[in-house]
Amino acid sequence: MFASVVAVVAMIGSPQADHSAAFKQFSDRGLTDLGAYSMLHELCTKIGHRLSGSPSSLRAIDWTEAQMKRIGLMNIQRIPCMVPRWVRGKETASMVGSGKLAISALGGSIGTPSRGITAEVVEVKSLQEVADLGAKLKGKIVFYNRPFDRTVVRTGTAYGQANDQRTRGASAAAKVGAVGVLVRSLTFATDDVPHTGALRYEPGFEVPAAALGIQSADRLSAAIKQGPVQVRLTLGCKNLPEVESFSVMGDLRGSEHPGDIIVVGGHLDSWDVGQGAHDDGAGVVHALEAARLIQVSGRKPKRTIRVVAFMNEENGLRGGLSYAERAKTSPERSYAAIESDSGGFMPRGFSVTESKLAHVQAWLPLFQGTGVERFVAGGGGADIGPLGPLGTTLFGLIPEDQRYFDYHHAATDTIDKVNARELEFGAIAMAGLAWMISEEGLPQS
Amino acid sequence: MFASVVAVVAMIGSPQADHSAAFKQFSDRGLTDLGAYSMLHELCTKIGHRLSGSPSSLRAIDWTEAQMKRIGLMNIQRIPCMVPRWVRGKETASMVGSGKLAISALGGSIGTPSRGITAEVVEVKSLQEVADLGAKLKGKIVFYNRPFDRTVVRTGTAYGQANDQRTRGASAAAKVGAVGVLVRSLTFATDDVPHTGALRYEPGFEVPAAALGIQSADRLSAAIKQGPVQVRLTLGCKNLPEVESFSVMGDLRGSEHPGDIIVVGGHLDSWDVGQGAHDDGAGVVHALEAARLIQVSGRKPKRTIRVVAFMNEENGLRGGLSYAERAKTSPERSYAAIESDSGGFMPRGFSVTESKLAHVQAWLPLFQGTGVERFVAGGGGADIGPLGPLGTTLFGLIPEDQRYFDYHHAATDTIDKVNARELEFGAIAMAGLAWMISEEGLPQS
Repeated sequence: MFASVVAVVAMIGSPQADHSAAFKQFSDRGLTDLGAYSMLHELCTKIGHRLSGSPSSLRAIDWTEAQMKRIGLMNIQRIPCMVPRWVRGKETASMVGSGKLAISALGGSIGTPSRGITAEVVEVKSLQEVADLGAKLKGKIVFYNRPFDRTVVRTGTAYGQANDQRTRGASAAAKVGAVGVLVRSLTFATDDVPHTGALRYEPGFEVPAAALGIQSADRLSAAIKQGPVQVRLTLGCKNLPEVESFSVMGDLRGSEHPGDIIVVGGHLDSWDVGQGAHDDGAGVVHALEAARLIQVSGRKPKRTIRVVAFMNEENGLRGGLSYAERAKTSPERSYAAIESDSGGFMPRGFSVTESKLAHVQAWLPLFQGTGVERFVAGGGGADIGPLGPLGTTLFGLIPEDQRYFDYHHAATDTIDKVNARELEFGAIAMAGLAWMISEEGLPQS
Repeated sequence: MFASVVAVVAMIGSPQADHSAAFKQFSDRGLTDLGAYSMLHELCTKIGHRLSGSPSSLRAIDWTEAQMKRIGLMNIQRIPCMVPRWVRGKETASMVGSGKLAISALGGSIGTPSRGITAEVVEVKSLQEVADLGAKLKGKIVFYNRPFDRTVVRTGTAYGQANDQRTRGASAAAKVGAVGVLVRSLTFATDDVPHTGALRYEPGFEVPAAALGIQSADRLSAAIKQGPVQVRLTLGCKNLPEVESFSVMGDLRGSEHPGDIIVVGGHLDSWDVGQGAHDDGAGVVHALEAARLIQVSGRKPKRTIRVVAFMNEENGLRGGLSYAERAKTSPERSYAAIESDSGGFMPRGFSVTESKLAHVQAWLPLFQGTGVERFVAGGGGADIGPLGPLGTTLFGLIPEDQRYFDYHHAATDTIDKVNARELEFGAIAMAGLAWMISEEGLPQS
């Protein structure tokens, strides 16, 4: 099924015939070895989650370097950056007199006093509602409970429409005198596993904030409908001074244009729950495996294919920013970048910088069998975003998205949620795309 | 992402503008209610697996009728058919002196004597190898151990290349005097859960046969490499006389051409392990929910949309055959049929009778947002296959296929492997397709 017989036949005898053979090599070897899954299994089970600045994040850096050496990459380097150092402590929440709530402190949140804070909870649906209620929220805990819009097809869109509650809700509540914030988890899941993620305080407006599991949010909302509810919230988290960390890079050196750099990357850091399997261990092993598949094919790319495992996407983007700073002053040309940061599910397409969309559409028939059926205009991913202003063509892997937010930033983001073949197809697709950019180039405007 | 802006804009002001509105209704209501998942959860947890002729299959028939009444279908009928009645008994296998093997008797297998059979095991990779070995296999247990070809992209193709071992291996072994058969499970999974499924005996060549879990198959193969291995195999299964069972149908009656029948269906029977969640509870609830989505939209289809829950796809196809017999003598026209029998994963396309492919391609932009991105030439599914010779246009839902054979015919095919939104998109896509066939018709050749 999904045959593009006409397109494939048209390639025979053309330079693209050889590209078809390259794709077949990547696919056969990838599906036989399932190297992406082997690596991800090791990263998840031996290192586990790896928040920026944590001891496990440093072990993950060592592990990534070791993978790059094993694959045979050259020019392996650590690219330093300062990163926030936030640590979670003991955390509990309960409705006074009626039971525990499942919570996870939001990344960057300040803690409560060790005895916790106890206050009446007011449920709201939006930041605007908080501003409108104003002084009525003084001394209260604000409970943001606007769910994902179920009728939205793309889960990332539903997330984008809801995540102001998590990212900006705490300071909005602090501004009107609230003493704490609870946020309904940003997910379509219906379990009670809370989903953490970064908040962004406005200076001077800082109150403790935590995500609530969906069932806990529903229980709390139901209780409030019966009358005033007091919640006791204790968060042991704290922000420590920034520390040095590193992104890691390594190259398959280009044979004809070694100064043209094609980044393939994901982010190495994760939240400090679960194993960071889909977010974004998958992206890191996609990039490593893409390079490995090209390397073991014996093919020599014309341009340099560079694997970058970015540090600190989750709470600072310092790895992406420091890599872009480095690129600015480098004699190399930042030619293209491909990021995988949407999970290890079956590929469906790639986004690409709009001006290059028409050009790469011609490559689509080659991707038959990788799951990729579309190129669409769009950005590539947070880590490579800062390379856009340098003229870099940006690509992002688009996997099937329906299950991503079931696990995103949660204790359930673990290796058992990853299918080895679906994960591998992402690496095969990225190897193919990097190969085509390397060999055929992109129009330079 | 996956936008087809041009196509959608082109529809405004055309008759298709209203079709877009219909699709949006189906999608909004489906994603809000998640009715397919509600039904499948109930079928899986209250009734469970439901092999043809079993008491649970009769409860499943009652349940299906009740769903049809709830949805408001008319002309609800049970369509009788005689079905095989095979029952599994106690079953064990062990390598003499070295431990148990995970097995599941193949559907239709005869049992062993109650003390079991004990014989040396000979590993083979093909039916041809069995014929070649001939008399050397007399008195032996034949162990078919040809795995799925990992380099094959489409899992259904890998299954098709391996399943002669399960369907025809037993009689091939019996012909050369073997006393039993073990077959490596037909799966890409790497666990030790055996996958059952039907065998087909040639009359007079019947030996007991069971599937082995993948890890058991690998252990047995490794042991054989060390020297002769005796296995003791005990299967308590047996074939009882055929019994009467039923497919179930119900109609949304067409307002203009009520005699033109558009079947939407899946099969109600399952293997007698797990819950038959993906195979094929998903298909049954896809069909029920597709009809429900059209019904609750308030739209009246021009042609009759008929939900059919077929009995006995797994080991006889008697439901599909008896429905086709009924259709042959009916004054109704068997206009089109859509089957879902590839699991409740995210839709990717539909197969369609090749002569109608060009016609339906024009509908593709409407499916934006359902996951369906392709129509491809192909058959529709086993149950509706017998309708093909009647001139019926056949369609099959093609969901993402990579995980299907992880659970197929195994104890792991349970409701927890189903994502509610992915399942619902299948129903939305089927509702949309049935609607388009009803309203726009198909070229009649």
